[in-house]
Amino acid sequence: MSDVAIGIDVGGTKALALMVARDGRVLGEVQAPTPHDSKLAPGEATASALAELIKYLASLHGLKASEIPVGVGLPGLMRKDGRLAYAPNLQTASGADVGSLLSVALQSSLVFYENDANCAALAEHEWGAGRGINDFVMVTLGTGIGGGIIADGALLRGRSGFAGEIGHMVVEAHGVPCTCGGMGCWERYASGSGLRRLIRDAAKEGRLSALLERAGSAEDIAPEDVTDAAAHGNDEAIDLIRQVSWWLALGLANLVAILDVGHFVIGGGLSRASDLVLPFAREYLSDLVEGYDSRPEITITSSMFEHRSGAMGAALVAFERYP
Amino acid sequence: MSDVAIGIDVGGTKALALMVARDGRVLGEVQAPTPHDSKLAPGEATASALAELIKYLASLHGLKASEIPVGVGLPGLMRKDGRLAYAPNLQTASGADVGSLLSVALQSSLVFYENDANCAALAEHEWGAGRGINDFVMVTLGTGIGGGIIADGALLRGRSGFAGEIGHMVVEAHGVPCTCGGMGCWERYASGSGLRRLIRDAAKEGRLSALLERAGSAEDIAPEDVTDAAAHGNDEAIDLIRQVSWWLALGLANLVAILDVGHFVIGGGLSRASDLVLPFAREYLSDLVEGYDSRPEITITSSMFEHRSGAMGAALVAFERYP
Repeated sequence: MSDVAIGIDVGGTKALALMVARDGRVLGEVQAPTPHDSKLAPGEATASALAELIKYLASLHGLKASEIPVGVGLPGLMRKDGRLAYAPNLQTASGADVGSLLSVALQSSLVFYENDANCAALAEHEWGAGRGINDFVMVTLGTGIGGGIIADGALLRGRSGFAGEIGHMVVEAHGVPCTCGGMGCWERYASGSGLRRLIRDAAKEGRLSALLERAGSAEDIAPEDVTDAAAHGNDEAIDLIRQVSWWLALGLANLVAILDVGHFVIGGGLSRASDLVLPFAREYLSDLVEGYDSRPEITITSSMFEHRSGAMGAALVAFERYP
Repeated sequence: MSDVAIGIDVGGTKALALMVARDGRVLGEVQAPTPHDSKLAPGEATASALAELIKYLASLHGLKASEIPVGVGLPGLMRKDGRLAYAPNLQTASGADVGSLLSVALQSSLVFYENDANCAALAEHEWGAGRGINDFVMVTLGTGIGGGIIADGALLRGRSGFAGEIGHMVVEAHGVPCTCGGMGCWERYASGSGLRRLIRDAAKEGRLSALLERAGSAEDIAPEDVTDAAAHGNDEAIDLIRQVSWWLALGLANLVAILDVGHFVIGGGLSRASDLVLPFAREYLSDLVEGYDSRPEITITSSMFEHRSGAMGAALVAFERYP
């Protein structure tokens, strides 16, 4: 029994570690870039960087890393035993037994693993925007789209713990190629990458001239530039936000059909534009859900913990598995 | 406690009622066309026809209908309390409180309700091709596509009991219009209707000449004609079966991504062609599933009870809710 746990959310670009109390209060926070050193054996760079981050955070609180339960959220097909079976966004650790590597580096047996978006779902369910809701999906809109499904009050894990890979649901057969090797995956349309593609297409067609002039080239227009311009009333930017919101709603409607969830919690980088995106998405959802009027209301809200959801949920995993 | 239950599967064209023993043995079977009388109030024609079918089946066994638990499987958004919230394939009962109407007609309080494909999933899980499997999806390929999801050993029902409407997952944004009002739903591509559309398209392009000559017009070529021709080695017919199998695999791959199920049980009319369809679908699935090689094997089998799965599962629902 420990009063605190460390939760780490390992993204494709950075890792966030939090010291979390049992009631969800965040007591400490450190962040570091995710290493992508391909000269080392798979997973070694990741495990060693995470070990240092954990030790550092523990030392800030006068604690030894090996004495604190640690939860690790990793992107991709994450097995409960710590093997990262497949991770297109973390190539240098894909297939590696990150769990064993990290246990050795930390000299700790108190390390527990879960998919990163599943962690976020658990945190929002326990403390945040999904509290008291039995059936909802956490949708993390970043470079890709991650998902964590709460069904009948519990995390839906599936056969191997790989459930919730909602970003790789194909919504456009023969569509845009995806990092996973597939084509037409939802995350190619409704994520930050989707917005980037819409920006490039719009620029090619001669739209977004004001943004283009400022940025120099279409590649240099960031999603945030478009959300900022949309917030200031730029019609062309609003049109792109509408498009990305339609794609978002399309995937959410699919999840309603399959899972009959009544609530979505939207997190990840793109959720910073949720004041713009969510009203459009709600509007489109009513068109896209089968039998919308015959169902109770479907709600969409922003994540309560924003970029911290994943790490908070990872700490929750540590608390749950080391009670 | 009853040793027998009646299970009814109400389809868009016919209703099948079975007298079922607790161990799954089918003791009696009757079938009747589903009425579509739109002159009566919504649900009345359905309820009255079902009541007669139930009474008749009970009388064949020397029993009174009001003394036997009855399970009813209906297509669409079926609430546990017997209200058929939305049913595009059973328009004259859509929105009706079939439960109350049927209880009155039967003078019985032992009538229980579930979505038809959910019933099929329950039957296959208890007695059939999903026995002992904790995570699988029952996929009924008929005119449309129905689904029943077994997750972690139990039926996934969702917030209102509407989960498993997998046929209305959009796989082709802006695609073919669907009876649900949407566009690009999976069931427009991978069902009997999907095959009919492929037949029409192929005929328009001058293919399927042998079948066309025999049938007279493209509209008169039935899906069974194509599966027969494919079974006899007709290359053009095999090509259509390959296409429909690809679409089937695409939707199955989406369900693997979202739910991490390792098994599919395929039922419904089109499953009669499963000797042709399933080998192709397995082949395509390995291309379409994200991280296929990093997962345990994914299996696809035919329903064990074929057209009887739904009614058997409806009887199981009756046993479970009237124990």
